[in-house]
Amino acid sequence: MERKRLVILGSTGSVGRQTLEIVRAFPDTFDVIGLAADKNTSLLMTQIDEFKPRMAFSSSHPTLFDTETHVTPTDPDKMVIDQSTDIVMVSTTGKAGLYPTVRALQAGKRVCLANKEVIIMAGSLITKLAKVNGELLPVDSEPNAIWQCIHGESANPQRLIITASGGPFRGVPHDSLHNVTPEQALKHPTWNMGPRITIDSATLMNKGFEVIEAKWLFNVNWSQIEVVVHPQSIIHSMVEFDDGSVKAQMAIPDMKLPIQYALLFPDRRFNKEIPRLDLSVQSKMTFEPLHENVYPCYKHALRAGHMGKTYPVVLSASDEMAVNLFLNKQLRFTDIPKVIEMSLETHIPSEGTDLEEILQVDMIARSKALEIAKRFMK
Amino acid sequence: MERKRLVILGSTGSVGRQTLEIVRAFPDTFDVIGLAADKNTSLLMTQIDEFKPRMAFSSSHPTLFDTETHVTPTDPDKMVIDQSTDIVMVSTTGKAGLYPTVRALQAGKRVCLANKEVIIMAGSLITKLAKVNGELLPVDSEPNAIWQCIHGESANPQRLIITASGGPFRGVPHDSLHNVTPEQALKHPTWNMGPRITIDSATLMNKGFEVIEAKWLFNVNWSQIEVVVHPQSIIHSMVEFDDGSVKAQMAIPDMKLPIQYALLFPDRRFNKEIPRLDLSVQSKMTFEPLHENVYPCYKHALRAGHMGKTYPVVLSASDEMAVNLFLNKQLRFTDIPKVIEMSLETHIPSEGTDLEEILQVDMIARSKALEIAKRFMK
Repeated sequence: MERKRLVILGSTGSVGRQTLEIVRAFPDTFDVIGLAADKNTSLLMTQIDEFKPRMAFSSSHPTLFDTETHVTPTDPDKMVIDQSTDIVMVSTTGKAGLYPTVRALQAGKRVCLANKEVIIMAGSLITKLAKVNGELLPVDSEPNAIWQCIHGESANPQRLIITASGGPFRGVPHDSLHNVTPEQALKHPTWNMGPRITIDSATLMNKGFEVIEAKWLFNVNWSQIEVVVHPQSIIHSMVEFDDGSVKAQMAIPDMKLPIQYALLFPDRRFNKEIPRLDLSVQSKMTFEPLHENVYPCYKHALRAGHMGKTYPVVLSASDEMAVNLFLNKQLRFTDIPKVIEMSLETHIPSEGTDLEEILQVDMIARSKALEIAKRFMK
Repeated sequence: MERKRLVILGSTGSVGRQTLEIVRAFPDTFDVIGLAADKNTSLLMTQIDEFKPRMAFSSSHPTLFDTETHVTPTDPDKMVIDQSTDIVMVSTTGKAGLYPTVRALQAGKRVCLANKEVIIMAGSLITKLAKVNGELLPVDSEPNAIWQCIHGESANPQRLIITASGGPFRGVPHDSLHNVTPEQALKHPTWNMGPRITIDSATLMNKGFEVIEAKWLFNVNWSQIEVVVHPQSIIHSMVEFDDGSVKAQMAIPDMKLPIQYALLFPDRRFNKEIPRLDLSVQSKMTFEPLHENVYPCYKHALRAGHMGKTYPVVLSASDEMAVNLFLNKQLRFTDIPKVIEMSLETHIPSEGTDLEEILQVDMIARSKALEIAKRFMK
């Protein structure tokens, strides 16, 4: 197999670190040529030491590499369009991945997208770009599962069935979540992920994002997307075809598998670090309906998705603000959906097809969400 | 879509009748040009009346069509190689389908194989032919599920996980099955099938056949095939790939789906007669290990498969004889495996790569099985 030159944006985050584990497993396949991170500069320096990328970026310490002679400080936007770049792993969170994703696709690169807000904010723009240039592969386990199930089928899917673990508060009435602490919300039952996405999983905002993401990535109608609660998180999603046949993709919850699949697609290779499914251990799988009313964030996400235009930009921005305030113990868990709801209600939408417009809507939505949140802040 | 001309061998059996239901659902796609059946001549006449095939065959009444001017009595071996034949559905049972399958593949036809004993008896010969000429598609729900999971993947499967309902006597100790009647054994918990295969499902001989079938069809090692008991029969089989990802094919148990998939492959089309999976109803799936020792027929099947050569011919022949005697209330349920075991033990194997040789071994094995069975007969 030809060597692939890889740029990782958000290399010190959960998906970034696991991407480097895949690189370690296939030293003859990948060359890391660019690493970008935010605050964790000491880990970034360790990664640079191990993988010796030519380009690096630290958003919190732009001058970090001055003493390192072999590393050229390079903006993410430049890294991704570098002539030698083959694959870009966008494992940032929030809006950070948006601009680099657009640039990478414009330059015809393969983008492995773990930063789903990029699609939420700019679904129309991104999918249009991916159709013409480049290649967009979802890393998130659910759309990645759908991708695997669809690959090789000539027919369009009839129904996408996205599974949800239900998060740590499955079955707990929303009203009793008033005093939930960040520590409690960060205990995800099946997945080990970064803090923002873990809170989004607890509110099921993350599942709402995935519905919007699936709508854009797989070009189906809203009515063709179904969410089902599957507490064991073994089936990562399912696809029903015209003839009624349903394909499911299954695995022990571990992000290394979808990361590797996106990096190597369409190839599959043995990796001893990826755990194997054992049905004598995983001997029961159950499914429950998702009750929208119990999860207000999920309900708001679907509403924003249906309304379209720039509503999803506001959804993502207000959610990010509210979740950060919650993680900083400035906002209650049950106030997260309130901030989002009021942000959506007061939004005056525009088309949301232009990058500058999207970024501006995002900026305004953030400051407005903060303003709204102040009413609830402790 | 181009019209497909179809020959159905065993048209009055369970799979044959359901094949005609698929034809009814797609009148613009299929022309039935040949029908062959055994004893149920009145149903065969009704089918001829409805589908107006050019060729027909009744093994029990060869002169049946003398008064019918538009039907030409034609041997199955001739029907399948007729120049106009595109697809042959082999939905006979036992050894009946062997010779026509060989002839059809030699003539480059698509063979949809529901008669799995054909592969058990002549796996080497059949798969070799299918590689060079023709096209062999399994109709049985388990190998059909594996086929669906593999389709479009470039990598070879790492592990095939065949599911088993466990049959009507799951959890019942073998020793207490002494007085089981054909009526009890014919009550399959999830599938509605013909009598022979239903008894083979109760003894789990059918699952042993499927392991041997999978070995031939998918070219894997014995150690790569796993059987797991899944009482709900929703997942029809699974495939694990190199990277640890597992794909499962799921559906409400209904043979029309694998039949349609084999007929239309690689296309999928909507058919309102095929029931849809509803996870709010099918809300639980469980998996249990298969205990070989509880199912002696399964154990004998695996042993015959591993020993190879003409052992599987004897397996199939002695099983067919014993099951027929059981259905006629001449043999006890628990004596079926004894007849098979003694038949295998006394067999002197040959290579089993030549059709005439296979048919002769089969004939001898049948008379020997009958002789052995006499010791146990009521």
